[in-house]
Amino acid sequence: MTQLDAVLATAARDFDNSLERLFRLVRIPSISTDPAHAGDCDRTAAAIVADLAALGFKAEARKTKGRPMVVAHYTPRNATAGMPHFLFYGHYDVQPADPLELWQTPPFEPVVKTEKGVARIYGRGTSDDKGQFMTFIEAARAWITATGSLPIKATFLIEGEEESGSPSLVPFLKANRKELSCDAAFVCDTGMWDARTPAITTRLRGLVHEEVTITGPRIDLHSGAYGGPAMNPIRVLSKVIAALHDRNGKVTIPGFYDGVADLPKAVRTQWRSLDFSEAKFLKDVGLGLPAGEKGKSVLEQIWARPTAEVNGIWGGYTGTGTKTVLPSKAHAKFTFRLVGRQDPDKVLKAFQRFVKGLIPKDCKVAFSGRGGGSPATEIPEDNPFIARSARALKDEFRRDAVLMGSGGSIPICRFFKDILGMDSILVGFALADDAIHSPNEKYNVESFRRGIRSWARIMGEFGA
Amino acid sequence: MTQLDAVLATAARDFDNSLERLFRLVRIPSISTDPAHAGDCDRTAAAIVADLAALGFKAEARKTKGRPMVVAHYTPRNATAGMPHFLFYGHYDVQPADPLELWQTPPFEPVVKTEKGVARIYGRGTSDDKGQFMTFIEAARAWITATGSLPIKATFLIEGEEESGSPSLVPFLKANRKELSCDAAFVCDTGMWDARTPAITTRLRGLVHEEVTITGPRIDLHSGAYGGPAMNPIRVLSKVIAALHDRNGKVTIPGFYDGVADLPKAVRTQWRSLDFSEAKFLKDVGLGLPAGEKGKSVLEQIWARPTAEVNGIWGGYTGTGTKTVLPSKAHAKFTFRLVGRQDPDKVLKAFQRFVKGLIPKDCKVAFSGRGGGSPATEIPEDNPFIARSARALKDEFRRDAVLMGSGGSIPICRFFKDILGMDSILVGFALADDAIHSPNEKYNVESFRRGIRSWARIMGEFGA
Repeated sequence: MTQLDAVLATAARDFDNSLERLFRLVRIPSISTDPAHAGDCDRTAAAIVADLAALGFKAEARKTKGRPMVVAHYTPRNATAGMPHFLFYGHYDVQPADPLELWQTPPFEPVVKTEKGVARIYGRGTSDDKGQFMTFIEAARAWITATGSLPIKATFLIEGEEESGSPSLVPFLKANRKELSCDAAFVCDTGMWDARTPAITTRLRGLVHEEVTITGPRIDLHSGAYGGPAMNPIRVLSKVIAALHDRNGKVTIPGFYDGVADLPKAVRTQWRSLDFSEAKFLKDVGLGLPAGEKGKSVLEQIWARPTAEVNGIWGGYTGTGTKTVLPSKAHAKFTFRLVGRQDPDKVLKAFQRFVKGLIPKDCKVAFSGRGGGSPATEIPEDNPFIARSARALKDEFRRDAVLMGSGGSIPICRFFKDILGMDSILVGFALADDAIHSPNEKYNVESFRRGIRSWARIMGEFGA
Repeated sequence: MTQLDAVLATAARDFDNSLERLFRLVRIPSISTDPAHAGDCDRTAAAIVADLAALGFKAEARKTKGRPMVVAHYTPRNATAGMPHFLFYGHYDVQPADPLELWQTPPFEPVVKTEKGVARIYGRGTSDDKGQFMTFIEAARAWITATGSLPIKATFLIEGEEESGSPSLVPFLKANRKELSCDAAFVCDTGMWDARTPAITTRLRGLVHEEVTITGPRIDLHSGAYGGPAMNPIRVLSKVIAALHDRNGKVTIPGFYDGVADLPKAVRTQWRSLDFSEAKFLKDVGLGLPAGEKGKSVLEQIWARPTAEVNGIWGGYTGTGTKTVLPSKAHAKFTFRLVGRQDPDKVLKAFQRFVKGLIPKDCKVAFSGRGGGSPATEIPEDNPFIARSARALKDEFRRDAVLMGSGGSIPICRFFKDILGMDSILVGFALADDAIHSPNEKYNVESFRRGIRSWARIMGEFGA
């Protein structure tokens, strides 16, 4: 019997207790967005610290301007200088539970229900993210129980403000750079491809936004008295938006694609082989034609291609009935999803140049976005941490881990890279139907069980 | 001394009384939009009826569902079957006076003030329209006083709901079609070209409107999760708006210009000869480049060319900050100003076809305008009533009357044409700085004086 076999057997024997420990955390309504629950957040952090300390971690609930940050370090008995050291990140705060009346069981009274043969743990935070980060802790417990130690150096960082936008995280990382810098970060806050197929999320799009105001006449005009000779700023803005994409769905801003690389062939092949129906994906939201770049699959359009999107537009009279106004101003909000090495600042500047080039000389344009933005996070699919984690996941699930993208952004990955200099390996066991942020949030018992086993395997994979 | 000389001399002698009679009307706050002033409207109508009856008119305040309609007929002693018969239209109701604190003298206490050598009558309704329709009545009084009769058959129609959209006018015209049908209608509710130059407004643009809603995804989407493959309806709507005009400012809707005739050369020549600065007109509203059809003057663009205008646009997130939404719907309100024989219904249908042709197959478009609309009103510049009225105005002002257009619409002209079968001759003496609908409305004493003289001349022109 290998060490790992013993660890997995221990986890299996202890699984009912693992569930009960998760339940204990779920019972505390640690809603970070609601000041009334600040005490609940503190209690949750304290409970995690106590649990980790009992396992031999050097664990503390560290003060921030907001909710405490759980930091726990584990140094194996036989630790060597060359032994890998990983940060494990999760968050103990949860979304508010309202609307309460839509919950079939009380959100903070976790319960396992078996429906159509699938056992599910219901409760706020079961999937996002208490159930997920507890897979780390239970895997660590199994290793320590079975072998007396972890096979790697580990630092657990469990924050309490993720659902509030993590306001304390960046200052905390900066203030504790040395303490928290590891070889890589494992983040357990994402999903599987499907209930049978594990996934590692290796691509997160970046984001930069801008707001554009175009002024034509200096005041609103009567469309009878001025219609014809007076330029309408809605026309100008529409020309800008219409010019943003060519007929093949490609963004036309000069220089926009600088830093965008073609997808590696192996990744494209894997994505094309996935059980994914483009037609169903679009039909579910009432559409039928992929609107992104022609020749790219829908998954590639979301996971590996940048976008230029209008999130809002307004100008002139928008009430009921008619008003024959020729408006002074028209406005639109834009966001750009970024991939590869696209530079948010360069994209913004290129966009501004592009807009200015389309404005008649007697109209004005103002840009009121606050700048900032974040580049994409991409970890090369051949990164050794990715490859070895994928191997461990395949051992557990008997299926290749999908190297997924995500159309959205997970800012912590940028922070870990920029402040702590380490890549993030995103491995999670949530499923699309987990209803995170919604009533009746759940986490499958199998997600929890195989999550624990997966981390036990990943720890073993990198162990001595 | 001719008859006309005697009439003009009488008007001159009686002018102070004319002013006082105007003042009496201005003192009654006949605000038709405010039910609290219904009694004031009734009193105003009664005062006009009494005045016209004293002059020998068969005058009545006729009931409507709203404010009474003053109808007064005058048949000259020597009337013949072939004697011309004109309807004279004005309105005795006025706009509300608020904001009261911006008035320098109380709105319903008329006063003459001389500023920079120009005598002005201040008060709500002095220009719009009590001062204007009183020019009819005072001209008629001068004729009757000097000669014992009017030289033409006359029907005066002074309504009390013009500022409320004339809800009773159409039913009243329909119910009294025979009684009110004349050879032509004279309408005194427009302006001069400038303080020295009389004008007849011969072209009023028509108007039709439409509201467009484009639906892409059936629900708002997360722009990270769907951005790329999901079509954004704001993009679709912008393409529609951007496609509405070509680079020369011409509307591109197929069939849009059906029924639009070129401007007669004589009119174009007159308009080009006017003291009108295109640069100043645009600069006053903060613009510098005529946005209408290239090769057409600004006046031609407003007075004689149709438009396709967006009056409002909205969709997605329009609050402060950012929200990374890919919206389900985008909306815009459109109006089309019409000229010549453009058919509002055909223009709407052509626009709808045009829009449908630009919508991707998986998006939807809905049109929620209520239809309706009105065609343009154009009286050929060589119409004999126009030509002879222009001659009378030239006699008074020693300058050619400008045959103007108006970018806006005056619905009564359509009603007179459609219901009573007669053209409207729009002759008025208001000036651009009269501040109608605003605080400190005024009517120049010269507008009033020469307005009376002009109508005296026009009546004489058509008299036996």
